[in-house]
Amino acid sequence: MIVPIHLENSLAVKYDVVIDALPEMTFNRKVAIVTNTTVSALHLETLKLKIKADELFVVTIADGEEYKTLETVESILNELFEHKLDRKSLLIALGGGVIGDMTGFTASLYQRGIGFVQVPTTLLSQVDASVGGKTGVNNKYGKNLIGAFYQPEAVYIDTQFLKTLPEREFSAGIAEIIKMAVMFDREYFDYLNQADFSNKEDLEKAIQRSVELKAEVVNLDEKESGIRAVLNYGHTFGHVVENETNYKTYLHGEAVAIGIMMINALAVELALMSQAEMDLVTAFLVKHNLPITYAIKDVDSFYDKLFLDKKAANNKLKFILPQGIGGHLIRDDIEESVIKKVLEQFLEKEI
Amino acid sequence: MIVPIHLENSLAVKYDVVIDALPEMTFNRKVAIVTNTTVSALHLETLKLKIKADELFVVTIADGEEYKTLETVESILNELFEHKLDRKSLLIALGGGVIGDMTGFTASLYQRGIGFVQVPTTLLSQVDASVGGKTGVNNKYGKNLIGAFYQPEAVYIDTQFLKTLPEREFSAGIAEIIKMAVMFDREYFDYLNQADFSNKEDLEKAIQRSVELKAEVVNLDEKESGIRAVLNYGHTFGHVVENETNYKTYLHGEAVAIGIMMINALAVELALMSQAEMDLVTAFLVKHNLPITYAIKDVDSFYDKLFLDKKAANNKLKFILPQGIGGHLIRDDIEESVIKKVLEQFLEKEI
Repeated sequence: MIVPIHLENSLAVKYDVVIDALPEMTFNRKVAIVTNTTVSALHLETLKLKIKADELFVVTIADGEEYKTLETVESILNELFEHKLDRKSLLIALGGGVIGDMTGFTASLYQRGIGFVQVPTTLLSQVDASVGGKTGVNNKYGKNLIGAFYQPEAVYIDTQFLKTLPEREFSAGIAEIIKMAVMFDREYFDYLNQADFSNKEDLEKAIQRSVELKAEVVNLDEKESGIRAVLNYGHTFGHVVENETNYKTYLHGEAVAIGIMMINALAVELALMSQAEMDLVTAFLVKHNLPITYAIKDVDSFYDKLFLDKKAANNKLKFILPQGIGGHLIRDDIEESVIKKVLEQFLEKEI
Repeated sequence: MIVPIHLENSLAVKYDVVIDALPEMTFNRKVAIVTNTTVSALHLETLKLKIKADELFVVTIADGEEYKTLETVESILNELFEHKLDRKSLLIALGGGVIGDMTGFTASLYQRGIGFVQVPTTLLSQVDASVGGKTGVNNKYGKNLIGAFYQPEAVYIDTQFLKTLPEREFSAGIAEIIKMAVMFDREYFDYLNQADFSNKEDLEKAIQRSVELKAEVVNLDEKESGIRAVLNYGHTFGHVVENETNYKTYLHGEAVAIGIMMINALAVELALMSQAEMDLVTAFLVKHNLPITYAIKDVDSFYDKLFLDKKAANNKLKFILPQGIGGHLIRDDIEESVIKKVLEQFLEKEI
């Protein structure tokens, strides 16, 4: 039994993150579960057994990041209108980050906002995406470029769901866990380095610390005007990798792993991280079957795409750099030439 | 010179509503003006002369309520992405309620939220739509059913813009002014009854009181969990009228005038308003060339459409009723038969 983590401080909506077996839920209102075809086949019945509602129905969408679009959100909205949901109705997101982000976004839009609950079924969404209220969709210009800050009413994390998770997706979640450790907590990094994630206790402990750290950061800075940007460690480069490969080649966590490699290389170049520290992180990524290389075709074009990052402002790129392991630094004054020099290490020929 | 009205209390974003000549504006950031073809031809150059920005460009959309769709918002978003707006960029809504609602909604969505300023050019948007942070679009299920609560950084109200406003649109704005008076302030109603709106001073005074009342209500209840619903006086029926006529026959304010006639008839039926009071309101609407009749084709179908109202919850309709002139009452327990009896007064044959 793991203690619930309570989020409040700066947040408009207060909610609990409960890391434990999925609880019984009784709602005196209309409830719609939003899920995808894959998760539906595996876990929908489990969830339905837990829910008592005035009226319960399910919206099932296609599985995949490529469906994380405004078009899909509009189709979900239309189903909700057909079922005449009202302002007191509730959405439940059953699935990974894509389902969570889109369900939260849909909830924020429906009649200017109805409640929603996160039931994340992937490691990545359990440790990261389900907590903090970032919702949205991708478009041709990049990832999560359209969306809202919108907090769920609760997040229920049950590691049971992870038993059916493909190994590759499990690894992708590890990337977001190591992100938190490298940015904030050396002790946690050392713990993760020796943990056995096939062990339920080790896994829950790892998830709990990640969620705790995330909750702390979100409480300090919900709208990402400051420290919350640190959670984007590995993401600035990672998003370009995803964009260049049309979100098809890599899972989000895998792209983040590549992004971590790139930003660590930049940190080493800037003497913010030692080569030995970088090697420790690399070894961890390798141990968990995460990719550590990427074939950049054209450095200039890759560099230009960095400006689509939501952190970029007034034509300045903002980088979230590690300071050794367990520390972080935000810099927006790094010379183009330095960045390109690092990117060159990842040029196609090197693979 | 009219005093700025400051909105803060419960609002996440604090902002001023300035009722005066349009000020000079200097922005150290990228700015996009969103407007429509009609307003652009009349007022764009005036606004542009007032603005100094790092970079300024204009997004022009087609004029009309029928373009208040998610599709149009997506097209505006795409233009913003093409121009590489960042999180520090700013949108300025130059136009009426449609432009204001869509620009605010677009601002709320772009990279999960950028700033926006309202420059309302119609009487309706000056007295109502531009203040309070309700943004959104229509869809086939009804009006403003998709959207966000998102506050502007400032609202600049300049009655100069109204000089080019078609008379019919001016009248439509009057409907939202009389709404505030009937709900909240008998003295204001009496003032309006004898005011001459062709006189700048009278007009500014009328606008100011309307905005003050609105600001008070929004401060108390931004997300419309309570008293803010009162601002929907005339809207519950009015929205169905708009929906049935495909948003083509009536301007929003005209539909509200019809809605006011219907809800007043219900209030008289419930003995909340005397026939004499109702007649006073009717006379005011007639004096300002607002419609007071509507030919309902089918009472049952009209009644069913009332449930699409955002205020409806748990299958209960919520009505915003006048209590005499200057008072209000929210009721969700009115018998279907009573409502239908009132609707029958508006059956086609009666016209």
